[in-house]
Amino acid sequence: MSLFNGLEEAARPNLGQEMHDFAASLFPICRSITGKGIRETLARIETRIPLDAYDVPSGTKVFDWTVPKEWNIRDAYIADVGGRRVVDFQKCNLHVLNYSVPIDERMPLDRLKAHLFTLPEYPDWIPYRTSYYKEDWGFCLAHRQMTQLKDGEYQVRIDSTLEDGCLTYGECFLPGRSGDEILISCHACHPSLANDNLSGVTVATFLAKHLAGHDLRYSYRFLFIPGTIGAITWLARNRETAGRIRHGLVLTCIGDAGGFHYKKSRRGNAEIDRAAAHVLRHCGEPAKVLEFSPYGYDERQYCSPGFNLPVGCLMRSVWGSFPEYHTSADNLDFIKPSSLANSLRVCATILDVLENNQSYQNTLPYGEPQLGRRGLYGSEAGGEEIMARLWVLNLSDGQHSLLDIADQSGIVFSRIHAAAELLCQKGLLSVAGEDRVKTKMQDAARHKTNSQNQ
Amino acid sequence: MSLFNGLEEAARPNLGQEMHDFAASLFPICRSITGKGIRETLARIETRIPLDAYDVPSGTKVFDWTVPKEWNIRDAYIADVGGRRVVDFQKCNLHVLNYSVPIDERMPLDRLKAHLFTLPEYPDWIPYRTSYYKEDWGFCLAHRQMTQLKDGEYQVRIDSTLEDGCLTYGECFLPGRSGDEILISCHACHPSLANDNLSGVTVATFLAKHLAGHDLRYSYRFLFIPGTIGAITWLARNRETAGRIRHGLVLTCIGDAGGFHYKKSRRGNAEIDRAAAHVLRHCGEPAKVLEFSPYGYDERQYCSPGFNLPVGCLMRSVWGSFPEYHTSADNLDFIKPSSLANSLRVCATILDVLENNQSYQNTLPYGEPQLGRRGLYGSEAGGEEIMARLWVLNLSDGQHSLLDIADQSGIVFSRIHAAAELLCQKGLLSVAGEDRVKTKMQDAARHKTNSQNQ
Amino acid sequence: MSLFNGLEEAARPNLGQEMHDFAASLFPICRSITGKGIRETLARIETRIPLDAYDVPSGTKVFDWTVPKEWNIRDAYIADVGGRRVVDFQKCNLHVLNYSVPIDERMPLDRLKAHLFTLPEYPDWIPYRTSYYKEDWGFCLAHRQMTQLKDGEYQVRIDSTLEDGCLTYGECFLPGRSGDEILISCHACHPSLANDNLSGVTVATFLAKHLAGHDLRYSYRFLFIPGTIGAITWLARNRETAGRIRHGLVLTCIGDAGGFHYKKSRRGNAEIDRAAAHVLRHCGEPAKVLEFSPYGYDERQYCSPGFNLPVGCLMRSVWGSFPEYHTSADNLDFIKPSSLANSLRVCATILDVLENNQSYQNTLPYGEPQLGRRGLYGSEAGGEEIMARLWVLNLSDGQHSLLDIADQSGIVFSRIHAAAELLCQKGLLSVAGEDRVKTKMQDAARHKTNSQNQ
Repeated sequence: MSLFNGLEEAARPNLGQEMHDFAASLFPICRSITGKGIRETLARIETRIPLDAYDVPSGTKVFDWTVPKEWNIRDAYIADVGGRRVVDFQKCNLHVLNYSVPIDERMPLDRLKAHLFTLPEYPDWIPYRTSYYKEDWGFCLAHRQMTQLKDGEYQVRIDSTLEDGCLTYGECFLPGRSGDEILISCHACHPSLANDNLSGVTVATFLAKHLAGHDLRYSYRFLFIPGTIGAITWLARNRETAGRIRHGLVLTCIGDAGGFHYKKSRRGNAEIDRAAAHVLRHCGEPAKVLEFSPYGYDERQYCSPGFNLPVGCLMRSVWGSFPEYHTSADNLDFIKPSSLANSLRVCATILDVLENNQSYQNTLPYGEPQLGRRGLYGSEAGGEEIMARLWVLNLSDGQHSLLDIADQSGIVFSRIHAAAELLCQKGLLSVAGEDRVKTKMQDAARHKTNSQNQ
Repeated sequence: MSLFNGLEEAARPNLGQEMHDFAASLFPICRSITGKGIRETLARIETRIPLDAYDVPSGTKVFDWTVPKEWNIRDAYIADVGGRRVVDFQKCNLHVLNYSVPIDERMPLDRLKAHLFTLPEYPDWIPYRTSYYKEDWGFCLAHRQMTQLKDGEYQVRIDSTLEDGCLTYGECFLPGRSGDEILISCHACHPSLANDNLSGVTVATFLAKHLAGHDLRYSYRFLFIPGTIGAITWLARNRETAGRIRHGLVLTCIGDAGGFHYKKSRRGNAEIDRAAAHVLRHCGEPAKVLEFSPYGYDERQYCSPGFNLPVGCLMRSVWGSFPEYHTSADNLDFIKPSSLANSLRVCATILDVLENNQSYQNTLPYGEPQLGRRGLYGSEAGGEEIMARLWVLNLSDGQHSLLDIADQSGIVFSRIHAAAELLCQKGLLSVAGEDRVKTKMQDAARHKTNSQNQ
Repeated sequence: MSLFNGLEEAARPNLGQEMHDFAASLFPICRSITGKGIRETLARIETRIPLDAYDVPSGTKVFDWTVPKEWNIRDAYIADVGGRRVVDFQKCNLHVLNYSVPIDERMPLDRLKAHLFTLPEYPDWIPYRTSYYKEDWGFCLAHRQMTQLKDGEYQVRIDSTLEDGCLTYGECFLPGRSGDEILISCHACHPSLANDNLSGVTVATFLAKHLAGHDLRYSYRFLFIPGTIGAITWLARNRETAGRIRHGLVLTCIGDAGGFHYKKSRRGNAEIDRAAAHVLRHCGEPAKVLEFSPYGYDERQYCSPGFNLPVGCLMRSVWGSFPEYHTSADNLDFIKPSSLANSLRVCATILDVLENNQSYQNTLPYGEPQLGRRGLYGSEAGGEEIMARLWVLNLSDGQHSLLDIADQSGIVFSRIHAAAELLCQKGLLSVAGEDRVKTKMQDAARHKTNSQNQ
């Protein structure tokens, strides 16, 4: 039976709102690639799923990179001569250039302006800017506000520290029957940005929660990491075992109202690529499959040529392609409860394909078996159910996986899988070749579990 | 020279009418998957072509199936209280549910109605229904007629037998120079249905007749069988030798006025698939190539995974897609003399491709040979004739078959084949590799035949 | 660095006019497949590039062909009874049927007409006709002029000779660091025809001139030959070494105002096919890639199955598809300076791809290297420059050539190549596998050259 049959978890009526609430609880935290913000975020995730946090000291060499100093910030503002905060980090953490070094100076507007960032084309939005690898300081604000700043002196204060410390990331590992792993990775290093960052964090958290309740074929590894440097750090620390990853997804920008986009792994025809394309084709929302490109989120690192892992990237609106991206408009209104819930459903459905995709052998391969006398051909089954049975029987020669059969027949995987399970029960199908061995071990594992349950 | 040059047989002016007449002669017979109807049909086919009939006893295990009891029917009717037959098998054999068990009872209309089948959406047509594997009885009639039946008692009589006997099928085997076989299969188990059943029977009969007059590369096996159980029975009895089948066609619904449809074999790229697609592309009628699916006619059995024979299905209108299908409207008016004749022509042309498709070797492969001084480049040849020669010379490297060359050049196979024959005569081409050996044997066989003719 | 960086030669402002002037200087010569015309043409080419002329005696067997007698002509005319030349070879060398045997006779118009060729559909144009392999004589003239000829006697004179001599062709060989060759072939056997013949001759001449100034990876062989018999003769004399040709282009009809057409080699996916398609896709003019066909220019011979060389054909308007083809309207007005110059640029760009196409190895393949600290990620580079670097790094696994990367990324080859050179300088890339060996030899060769230059 499908591990995700009915996807009850994903169908829970308030699920979308619960997910949105969780994102909302993380929204105010001022995250960065290091520091207390990401640690607090991981602590909140850990209230929902088992999570191990890893601290990697500043200065650690990770491939071609070095773990940077840890950045923390308590306060930041620009105050006018009257002492009134005209730009205030306490109101919105996007106001400070992320990774700003400390400053406490009085300076005229002219000098200050070289450190101000705005978006003239969206005059009411605050841009999100960072300066991780070049020491600098700055403020981000609405263009309209900047144009209204009066000439004169301003007190500029950033109460931050940039000191040796560590880079922290979180891992949630769910052991399955096999040591082969499925990787789910999301970045958790952006401050108050909802779609870019928190949507991925939220879907990953709820997905892990959902999986934790099931008997799993694969082991699952969820990473909540700072973008780029975090993925590189993880890969450097897990170089030898990264090869266990059989399939992977980077989740980002997955909570907005747009349709789905799946960007293929570098391999282009990996099982995850085919599974994601299949599920999106049948998901009932607009969806598009994009070719791999070496630009984007952490799939860039997982798909670097030395690793070439089968990891794609699942999004709704593509990062960089919507104006709210990397601005204060990517807020909690920009992500929708229903979008979050359906993204979770789609992710779970992709994993359902991976969990259940295997090859079978028709046990009566000469001519068709007589379905009628087994009650498999009657009008009680819908036409597509019978077609699914015929397709599975016809293509189960040990060479076609269920996903192959689903794609060739045009029938959704879950229906093909259900047909295969039924035909197995009726003795008309058996697990093929190598899969047979795996399944026997699975049966043993299941039996053990059942015994324990009794 | 082409075995089918000019396709004189197919071009005979009255051919279509002769074919239609033959179908008409078979039309009134009440066929089923067993019984006298199919035997009488085979006897009439045997008046035209050599045919062996095989009787397989009821109860014989054939793979997962069992040969059913033999069904025969003499009479059936529903009579009103006045004794007037309101539904009469003698008027149309579709009126009886095929394989109905005997009954002779008086019953009220209400009880009778559970055994009546109609088509409300086509109120003047009688549907065709069967109950082969579940003992039942019933009558089929026009919906309009049923609504006019008056309440009251009716005498219901079906004078049928369902007893141990046998399943009968016919085989016409035409030996060729090679033991490799081409299979032509059609079902002959439907009562008075013209397109679904008799069109295939008629085209197959005339095709066998046509081939019988030629020196053949392949051996040909024509099967006239009950659908499903017949194909399964034949495969079970010929399991070891079925592998001789190199190419095959199931013929069904091939006499109506619609364009052609060719459904590919399970292999999808078998030579028969490419030959049929090529011929349809050039046939001058609308034509479409369909992907394989495990639903349809007996290609389902031939293409079951244990056999996976290269057998496609040639149709005009696709079964199930036209309203007349499995109704009394699939009558002799629904099939057209010109359609039957052209279907025969298309079949013969496909076989012509298979008979003549082989690879050659250009004997002067360095630069072009000088065609001009051999009279092969002059204006007496049309432009496409010269192009055919150039294509054959250029691609005859032992790796490209004539069908490859026809497809790559876009030139019809017969013209490519004619060019190859001419270039062989001129010494510019020789049969390649393995084909060479086969052809030498063929030449020996031809020589023998010629000697005998002298 | 690219051998063709900036393509300065091709960008020279007067280049197009210079090319047109060169074509104009060759235009009046009465060329044929043998004789003084082609020799004079080769002599003029030799004033610009190093050229070896080869004389092959009449009667020499070249594969299936024989080198014909040499044809020369001094004068030809049709004069009326008053002695006035009504058709005069001195005015236009197209007036005489090329390869006409000598004649000096008086005859009535009726008899003469059997030897006159016109184009009724273009009544003002003189057609171009030949009779190389069948001894004949004739005149070509405007249809309008023919219809105005008065009945009566005409003096018909062709002062030609057809005698043992030789077939002459020219070869320009430019040695490169490798013995692997690139072939550039054009026919130089047509009399006063500009696009069909002189455009190819001109582009090839200027291309050779351009290449002669560079350090070359490949050796280059330019052939200026009579069509068909010349290519066959060259292949017959170079049969053993023709395999050195790694890439090749036939140039013809490449000076008119139409867009580009590249006809693929017989192989269809040779590196030259991919390079030409890539360059045309980015060339900024309308361009179309055509499948191989065994009809056309000398690619027919190079792509004959015994050789199957990777030689395509680059054209603007396709021969035979424009009405001016093989008529007096294919004159110096029909070819454009700008078209000639841009054709040269496209040819040089194709060669640039071939010269620089190789595979590299990312030296830091685990995760992305940190481009920022190397100044490779800054805003001083355009977005596409950074993308080119990311693509090259991601796909440089020794399996993808730069052309593969250019095609997959959609970025023009020159930019991909520039990125690879820069990444090599920064130590992030090294030449892969076999290419490495080649390149080391190239470096040695370069070093030697540099030493000599010092």
